[in-house]
Amino acid sequence: MASPDRPQQPDARSAAAAAAGAGEGAGDAVVPTPLPPTERFAARTAGMTASEIRALFAVASRPEVVSLAGGMPNLAALPLGSLSAEVAELIDDDGLSALQYGSAQGVPVLREQICEVMREEGVEGDPNDVVVTVGSQMALDLLTRIFVDPGDVVLAEGPSYVGALGSFAAYQARVVHVAMDEHGLVPERLQEALETLAGQGITPKFLYTIPNFHNPAGVTLAHERRPRILEICRRYGVMVIEDNPYGMLGFDGQVHPALRSYDADVIYLGSFSKTFASGLRVGWALVPPLVRDRLVLAAESATLCPPTFTQMMVSRYLAHHDWRSMIKTFAENYRERRDAMLAALETYLPEGCSWTVPDGGFFVWLTVPEGVDTKAMLPRAVTARVAYASGTGFYADGFGSRQLRLSFCYPTPERITEGVRRLAAVLEAELDVVRTFGSSARRELNRGPQGPRPDSI
Amino acid sequence: MASPDRPQQPDARSAAAAAAGAGEGAGDAVVPTPLPPTERFAARTAGMTASEIRALFAVASRPEVVSLAGGMPNLAALPLGSLSAEVAELIDDDGLSALQYGSAQGVPVLREQICEVMREEGVEGDPNDVVVTVGSQMALDLLTRIFVDPGDVVLAEGPSYVGALGSFAAYQARVVHVAMDEHGLVPERLQEALETLAGQGITPKFLYTIPNFHNPAGVTLAHERRPRILEICRRYGVMVIEDNPYGMLGFDGQVHPALRSYDADVIYLGSFSKTFASGLRVGWALVPPLVRDRLVLAAESATLCPPTFTQMMVSRYLAHHDWRSMIKTFAENYRERRDAMLAALETYLPEGCSWTVPDGGFFVWLTVPEGVDTKAMLPRAVTARVAYASGTGFYADGFGSRQLRLSFCYPTPERITEGVRRLAAVLEAELDVVRTFGSSARRELNRGPQGPRPDSI
Repeated sequence: MASPDRPQQPDARSAAAAAAGAGEGAGDAVVPTPLPPTERFAARTAGMTASEIRALFAVASRPEVVSLAGGMPNLAALPLGSLSAEVAELIDDDGLSALQYGSAQGVPVLREQICEVMREEGVEGDPNDVVVTVGSQMALDLLTRIFVDPGDVVLAEGPSYVGALGSFAAYQARVVHVAMDEHGLVPERLQEALETLAGQGITPKFLYTIPNFHNPAGVTLAHERRPRILEICRRYGVMVIEDNPYGMLGFDGQVHPALRSYDADVIYLGSFSKTFASGLRVGWALVPPLVRDRLVLAAESATLCPPTFTQMMVSRYLAHHDWRSMIKTFAENYRERRDAMLAALETYLPEGCSWTVPDGGFFVWLTVPEGVDTKAMLPRAVTARVAYASGTGFYADGFGSRQLRLSFCYPTPERITEGVRRLAAVLEAELDVVRTFGSSARRELNRGPQGPRPDSI
Repeated sequence: MASPDRPQQPDARSAAAAAAGAGEGAGDAVVPTPLPPTERFAARTAGMTASEIRALFAVASRPEVVSLAGGMPNLAALPLGSLSAEVAELIDDDGLSALQYGSAQGVPVLREQICEVMREEGVEGDPNDVVVTVGSQMALDLLTRIFVDPGDVVLAEGPSYVGALGSFAAYQARVVHVAMDEHGLVPERLQEALETLAGQGITPKFLYTIPNFHNPAGVTLAHERRPRILEICRRYGVMVIEDNPYGMLGFDGQVHPALRSYDADVIYLGSFSKTFASGLRVGWALVPPLVRDRLVLAAESATLCPPTFTQMMVSRYLAHHDWRSMIKTFAENYRERRDAMLAALETYLPEGCSWTVPDGGFFVWLTVPEGVDTKAMLPRAVTARVAYASGTGFYADGFGSRQLRLSFCYPTPERITEGVRRLAAVLEAELDVVRTFGSSARRELNRGPQGPRPDSI
């Protein structure tokens, strides 16, 4: 065959290198010393560390521990009987397509259905601008890949989704957090942050925001703030990435208008992980046409194409099931759990604690009394058979040591009540120590080598 | 809630910026002009271009065109009846696990079965060192992410897999190609390349190699070369990434010993895309323990976890089917197609053409007579209702204009014969032009905005 050789530069070869080439094992002269793989890692891996929550799963997954740490959806209400018939039908009717490679952008019919789903939140999207991804995590990771150079600034709420912070770190972004209050991201704080950055000649690449039923904060962006946030970002030339996995899970049937419904330049991330089934890993991005081609190329380089099979499963589910009423059932289950958690927090928690009151989604964000360090306390909580996610994991900069995230999505109401009762006892003991000896000692978590469960969900 | 504000630097705010904060739409003074998204892309996206083959699919997917371009496996032999019963059972028996998030590293039982699969090629791997990915493309992309800084050199055969070149470009690697002959990668050329680079003070991050039934070259690395290649790489401190999607698809039942079977430091990439079903997107990497944790973290940031559902489908398939005899059936189908292609090439192709003779896999690598440019010829071939992949897409540096890749995996033997007959006629016409006017004019392919099918398979 005629595969041409690469051009060589004979003059660049030293005599020693030429000698090294001849014999076996000879020629250490110009040959670099072999390095262990740890010395060969790219600079960007310096930002890769096991997340705070991740380390927990090994211990917290024991059955005697009530885990209020993870964000796994509760899927018990899924109609497994009809799903199993449907997936069999998918193989019978369309197996050779479902088992074959597909488009890098995603299965066309699913992209149409995704537009129908987004219409519930006032979003008018074109299926040609939808890119299906392996969970919306992949969309966020790829958007960071195509927009962020090392050192670029991105804005995110403080606290923010731990999986987003992981992707930002992987691409060496510098995260500037913007404060929230009980009505979500505070426009004045956003304005101040952008002013300060503009004074330094910095335009952030984007604002990453979770407007609805925030992970981890549990708050929702007030409607009147939405156009203001968008206006401020437009004024400063900052793109907006809206991540909306929980938007349909309002406890009172309320659906908030997506930021994308105000402004077609907003990048919208959606997911079927919380409204159908997380194990299928089907999410998407709706992007402006100018972004789409780059995103599809990045997706192709990342996985060639998303799994055809799971996309077609989602597509059939949407076509044949009353998915809206399924989501309503999910939301009712979560509401019952939220109620159990709020009641238990009221009943058991010591004075000086405060928490957010979510009206949708999975999470309560708890602030503990001064002097208690939620990360240092965590091993003692797990020993007392309750797990939570300590607050520092949700900040890129070490804040959050007085906060923690409680998830009410997965356990039964009874287990939630018991978990909060145990947590209250741990907090009481911690406060005793604080009152006697001052602030609680900082201890590092014992990190296992493997993260058995994704943490950041 | 007590989410703390980010520290601001009031003195950094100019008066103009402060003014800008007050009113609506005021303050263009220090505010950067909004940029279109295309101006905001990261530097790494400069390397992202639609691949050569990708552009083809839009035209080549018309039914009247015989596509010898794509690398889609032929799945017609799959036992759809029993698969559909099995996937229904998966939901009935284990639906709540299969539809739920799973480990970022992959489902444990599947990782054990993957080790059993690799044992066929002499690889002794530990399930703890297996990382399941969304196709082996994702493993390669993530390995590039964790090892390659912009400007780092990686070695790859010339030609090499187009999806690998895409990932290398996405992370701004500099690819140095090493020549092959009919026995695969040439150790002397590898040695020379490493010498030259060492003379420049450069240690490549890794050698990326496809030892068996090479994509696109169709050749297999001779057994006696395998330890030599490894020895050379070890001497120069260069990691080896072995990509082996076709290894089990030898036409004479031969299984070549994996490079990993000689050396536990080799990173091995495997896939079920060609031995079972590509649409499930289940691949894996077997890595040294020192690499594993970083790879799992990168995977978590990329997709949180691979789809649980498709992993469990593969696991059940491996447990309940005679997968070895299924692979044998696949290989027989491909052998029949390879035979049809080789016979047609002998019968129809004009003098001056040469090609590789694969004894496994999907591809023949064809060299056309001097003066013919395979990229320029492609639109004329498609007009004549035959498509191929022009050679330049398989090089990072513009080589390959006299080569093209022919895939025999998907069409029927009759269609293959007809396709080669059409290709021969196009070549004859092209040679007529060359004899009359000199080298064929270069024309750019008309690139559609969307890549409807992954090309690089």
